Amino acid sequence: MKKLFTFLTILFLFSCSIKSNDNNIAIVIHGGAGTIIKKNMTDDLEKEYISKLEEAIKTGYEILKKGGSSQSAVEETIKILENSPLFNAGVGAVLTNDERVSLDASFMDGESLNAGAIAGSKYIKNPISAAIGVMDKSPHVFLSGEGADNFAIDIGLDTMPNSYFITERRLKSVREAKKRDSISYFENISNDSKYGTVGCVAIDLDGNISAGTSTGGTTNKKWGRIGDVPIIGAGNYANNDCCGISATGWGEHFIRNVVAYDIAAQIMYNKTDIISASKSALEKVVSTGGDGGVIGLDKHGNVAMEFNTPGMYRAHIDNDGNITVKIYKD
Amino acid sequence: MKKLFTFLTILFLFSCSIKSNDNNIAIVIHGGAGTIIKKNMTDDLEKEYISKLEEAIKTGYEILKKGGSSQSAVEETIKILENSPLFNAGVGAVLTNDERVSLDASFMDGESLNAGAIAGSKYIKNPISAAIGVMDKSPHVFLSGEGADNFAIDIGLDTMPNSYFITERRLKSVREAKKRDSISYFENISNDSKYGTVGCVAIDLDGNISAGTSTGGTTNKKWGRIGDVPIIGAGNYANNDCCGISATGWGEHFIRNVVAYDIAAQIMYNKTDIISASKSALEKVVSTGGDGGVIGLDKHGNVAMEFNTPGMYRAHIDNDGNITVKIYKD
Repeated sequence: MKKLFTFLTILFLFSCSIKSNDNNIAIVIHGGAGTIIKKNMTDDLEKEYISKLEEAIKTGYEILKKGGSSQSAVEETIKILENSPLFNAGVGAVLTNDERVSLDASFMDGESLNAGAIAGSKYIKNPISAAIGVMDKSPHVFLSGEGADNFAIDIGLDTMPNSYFITERRLKSVREAKKRDSISYFENISNDSKYGTVGCVAIDLDGNISAGTSTGGTTNKKWGRIGDVPIIGAGNYANNDCCGISATGWGEHFIRNVVAYDIAAQIMYNKTDIISASKSALEKVVSTGGDGGVIGLDKHGNVAMEFNTPGMYRAHIDNDGNITVKIYKD
Repeated sequence: MKKLFTFLTILFLFSCSIKSNDNNIAIVIHGGAGTIIKKNMTDDLEKEYISKLEEAIKTGYEILKKGGSSQSAVEETIKILENSPLFNAGVGAVLTNDERVSLDASFMDGESLNAGAIAGSKYIKNPISAAIGVMDKSPHVFLSGEGADNFAIDIGLDTMPNSYFITERRLKSVREAKKRDSISYFENISNDSKYGTVGCVAIDLDGNISAGTSTGGTTNKKWGRIGDVPIIGAGNYANNDCCGISATGWGEHFIRNVVAYDIAAQIMYNKTDIISASKSALEKVVSTGGDGGVIGLDKHGNVAMEFNTPGMYRAHIDNDGNITVKIYKD
């Protein structure tokens, strides 16, 4: 009788240990969607992008493989992309009309549905860590401007002078944009200046999904413009019951179409698969005049890397360690 | 043959003129949800609230009845609530930790799915008009802080000194909150200080749905905190294909649960009716620890005024002009 009880207890504990995602880990990242065409790219630059995407995603994957949390995987992966001048986030972010960076980021934890975001930071070295800090160490979800910088300092995050983030390439871009800038409010978004956001979605051994997104926004932005990246439901969303999503593209259209949550809602309410849901959400973005891309993982570890621009920097590692790194359309 | 063609043309034009909402107009407003209990209210104050809610909603209804747009009805209705010191929006908004107002608002047009929002304004007299201005006169959806104020000045909106917005009652509240304030970041939201947002949803003779929301946020807020009000999909959403929604409550939980768009998604993907969808979305808010309420109209003019707090200032006028004004639970 005692043996039977022990056997049943072990059986119960074993069954409890079976995770909702069948113990699959997975990670997917993007480094922005836009007019990324082979003929405009040098071989060296292409190698740099591929090498940095690989470094970032492998870092996150190793954390997951060792049993680390998806939160930690997303944070460390995005920090690598923020610290690289190749992408429009952290160092190398695009510049505002007054030639400074103004950084936005968000993070969501799919288990607790807790989230954090910042917008308009001028000094936080790693905006993704500040978004996580807002979630963990404040009663709020979303902090902005000087307040976000002050909060980051209060909780001991690294800050840097604004000059640390500024690259020659982005300074040239914003000055060109300002030359083209007309008095019309509608013409200050030049076509190729609104892309390059980075993002990561991961699922860990416990079946917890996390999503993070980080950006400098649009070149030549004014008036404290906030795009989709720090908006939970637009540029970022995670929920263990369905999926994690990170978006990149023309932020205004991603806000208007509530893209990240629209994908989640299609999966939850319509039983749509993550790829079809992503395609459908991006069609809505096109219907209002926008473009861009999304990455995502559903709760089973199925991946989506969809976009309707010529290219999207992206990478994925599945549970078996198979890696995919791509830039252009297939 | 020519007569038949003319007849068919007239028939076609007539059928086109039949609106998706069967030509029903309707309007619904809220003045915030919270611990609003009869025994804490004087008769005079109750009368003031009811009279202001009636004045506001009748103004919007008259616009709709004369064939005006739902955008105009929502803007003029919300301006009355913003200009009244009774509500937490415009004059009489709650005060930040540094004893100033910091105003957030958003607007969405259900026909174009275009939207506008501002956060952290210190000077815009009517934040709802600034949200509409961002939609109509900028390439952006969301402007923040000083930038939002500068944009409003650029497009010729009225601004006022910060002192115009400040009332004795709110000054007393914030000073009490600051006395209670501990060093813990988690204790700076006192229970009754986070409500009072105003909102309006209207449907016009053309079947166009508009939704607007406006607030001063939470008493004693710090670090440029942004709540759900200016977040399209969280505190506000409109789409002629399904509904318009405006929310009020503990903003952080409305962001995390993407409340306004969750209601729309349930209607679109699950064929849920607007009242059930609103109740279900508010249950999710409770499950993460929050509370509050929503108002909404579906495309047929059916109304929802749901909340899980003791009271919500609210009013509704249907197509036949029947008016409902309520404060407490039924």
